[in-house]
Amino acid sequence: MKNFFLSKSRRLRGTPYTSRIEKQGASAYTVYNHMILPTRFGGPLEELYQHLKDHVQVWDAAVQRQTEINGKDSYKLVQLMTCRDLSKAKIGRCYYAPIIDDKAKLINDPVILKLAEDRWWISLSDSDVELFAKGLAIGNNFDVNIFEAKVDIFSVQGPKSNDLMAKVLGPKIKDLKFFGFDYYEFGGAKHLIARSGWSKQGGFEVYMQHTEAGLALYDKLFEIGDEFNLKPGCPNLIERLESSLLSYGNDMDIGDNPLECGFDKYVNLDNDINFLGKEELKKIKSEGIKKKLMGVKINAKEISVTGSINMFDKDKNLIGELRSGSYNPMFKQVIGIAMVNKPYFKASQEFSVSIDGKNCSGKVCDLPFI
Amino acid sequence: MKNFFLSKSRRLRGTPYTSRIEKQGASAYTVYNHMILPTRFGGPLEELYQHLKDHVQVWDAAVQRQTEINGKDSYKLVQLMTCRDLSKAKIGRCYYAPIIDDKAKLINDPVILKLAEDRWWISLSDSDVELFAKGLAIGNNFDVNIFEAKVDIFSVQGPKSNDLMAKVLGPKIKDLKFFGFDYYEFGGAKHLIARSGWSKQGGFEVYMQHTEAGLALYDKLFEIGDEFNLKPGCPNLIERLESSLLSYGNDMDIGDNPLECGFDKYVNLDNDINFLGKEELKKIKSEGIKKKLMGVKINAKEISVTGSINMFDKDKNLIGELRSGSYNPMFKQVIGIAMVNKPYFKASQEFSVSIDGKNCSGKVCDLPFI
Repeated sequence: MKNFFLSKSRRLRGTPYTSRIEKQGASAYTVYNHMILPTRFGGPLEELYQHLKDHVQVWDAAVQRQTEINGKDSYKLVQLMTCRDLSKAKIGRCYYAPIIDDKAKLINDPVILKLAEDRWWISLSDSDVELFAKGLAIGNNFDVNIFEAKVDIFSVQGPKSNDLMAKVLGPKIKDLKFFGFDYYEFGGAKHLIARSGWSKQGGFEVYMQHTEAGLALYDKLFEIGDEFNLKPGCPNLIERLESSLLSYGNDMDIGDNPLECGFDKYVNLDNDINFLGKEELKKIKSEGIKKKLMGVKINAKEISVTGSINMFDKDKNLIGELRSGSYNPMFKQVIGIAMVNKPYFKASQEFSVSIDGKNCSGKVCDLPFI
Repeated sequence: MKNFFLSKSRRLRGTPYTSRIEKQGASAYTVYNHMILPTRFGGPLEELYQHLKDHVQVWDAAVQRQTEINGKDSYKLVQLMTCRDLSKAKIGRCYYAPIIDDKAKLINDPVILKLAEDRWWISLSDSDVELFAKGLAIGNNFDVNIFEAKVDIFSVQGPKSNDLMAKVLGPKIKDLKFFGFDYYEFGGAKHLIARSGWSKQGGFEVYMQHTEAGLALYDKLFEIGDEFNLKPGCPNLIERLESSLLSYGNDMDIGDNPLECGFDKYVNLDNDINFLGKEELKKIKSEGIKKKLMGVKINAKEISVTGSINMFDKDKNLIGELRSGSYNPMFKQVIGIAMVNKPYFKASQEFSVSIDGKNCSGKVCDLPFI
């Protein structure tokens, strides 16, 4: 795999943490929501993976931008964009909620935070949902305000995150429930902190709004972090695949609908809430899906997926496409996410893929992997 | 300036040219519309700049995605999104047309192609205008189809582009007028080709829809290109600044309106066409703008602008922010684009900026530079 440099410019925005993470050893980036997201710190990704599972890391996750929607019609607009029923949503809770268009195609898979009865944050994966929301609001004459809130998330992930955060913010934070959020004081400001994050090793996301106090909190964690073996880290491809956390743009995109992505429990077709693509989803559900996101295990020691890779059965039939993958130290083989066509989307379906010109065999499996 | 690697993944899509340009020596990328855009080929950017001004280059410009809008209400929707009057737009012509929201804030600065009375392509700079268009169409109940057309542009730029293209496609292409487009046959397919491109050295953009025949055309150009000293290239920061070609996300963004960006001739407030932000623009025009995009010349030999850089006058007043810049071999100093505040936005205003910790003096100037 040849390496390429990233050319930085103002168009690829930095974050309040950029100068810190570059001193802390960030060596590579991806680009996400027009911002730079670190992907490597020094050594191999496997070391960071093992460290994440054993200890605790702080990640610059500012690329998860917040589209704020507030005002009288804010619930109506937020609900219009997602197939998940938010009619009983509670203030202080996070909701993973697929955003779809009128053809039921996936536009984003954000976490939505209900801040008040008439105030929401859509914590985005990689697409300009703010523009979609603005278009809908203008066209429908909704009474709402829509803008990117000044929020720069940093994420504290790993099994020791609970003790680390309690040491700095007090023991009360240990009571925070998964996907709940509350406000915690540090440096003279109140910080919205959720028990959430893009790993399954436990942790928190600090929705930093007060930059000075927030950076002081970031620095404080590193100041006292040695006791917990705290390190700077980043979303980890190996861990997120092992934990079956999907990535919009990688595993699924605007060509897919939520039923194909296994989001059935976030698709509400049974009551009278109003959202785009509802009739289309009813039709898809009654006819049955024609492709499905599945796990795969491949007999290979390494892989770098930079685009869809075709998968074939033993008779050379195209059965689907591999969309993400990495070597996993626990499974001692490559695991990945694939969109598999009907009728092949069943566990134990065998296939072959070409990796760097070499044919490798694999098996489809159900998600999650563990 | 430390260098960082780009971590590739399916989410950062490649183009039909990626395998070719990587063999041809691409060494760095930026990310644009969720795709990878080459920014360097081997040697220093100055060599490519001089070559572009003397000879001819082929660029992978597939990141300029086409949002197609067709159907009965397509004109109504396209016009709703831009302050440029398209009521008399002609089939076969390209129109540089700022897209703004209901607050008159800039969302994109695309070139819009009128393909037929009810069929348009919006050739995008870096934001998901497709989502804005979908939101507006759904909310307004417009009778339109909106999708990303399967089009992958390659660009032929430089003074010898005319002769190179005529040699392969026939002399008729020399008659094509600036910002006109027509169809030219090669490899058994008709290719939409416009006289346009993101340099001022002359050239064409091939809106490749037929991948096989289009790649054959790409290869043919390189096969016979030695006579014209053809080289692979990419949008060139030095040349585009010298030519005062603006870059959305770098020079201007959703915090700016088109009058602040000097787009006065693309702002139509005098007849009754209907577009978003029209009343707001009338208000801004009558009150006068409070900041303005201007050129700057700085007494420095190099610069790397990766975010806004504050500009101060001799009394330490903040007078604006530098947003793009590069050393220019013709001016023998750094030139750049800055958003300058009232009352400082006048040519010959002096200022200082900090470049890599060193204070450098500069002067504001009118655009274009030449």
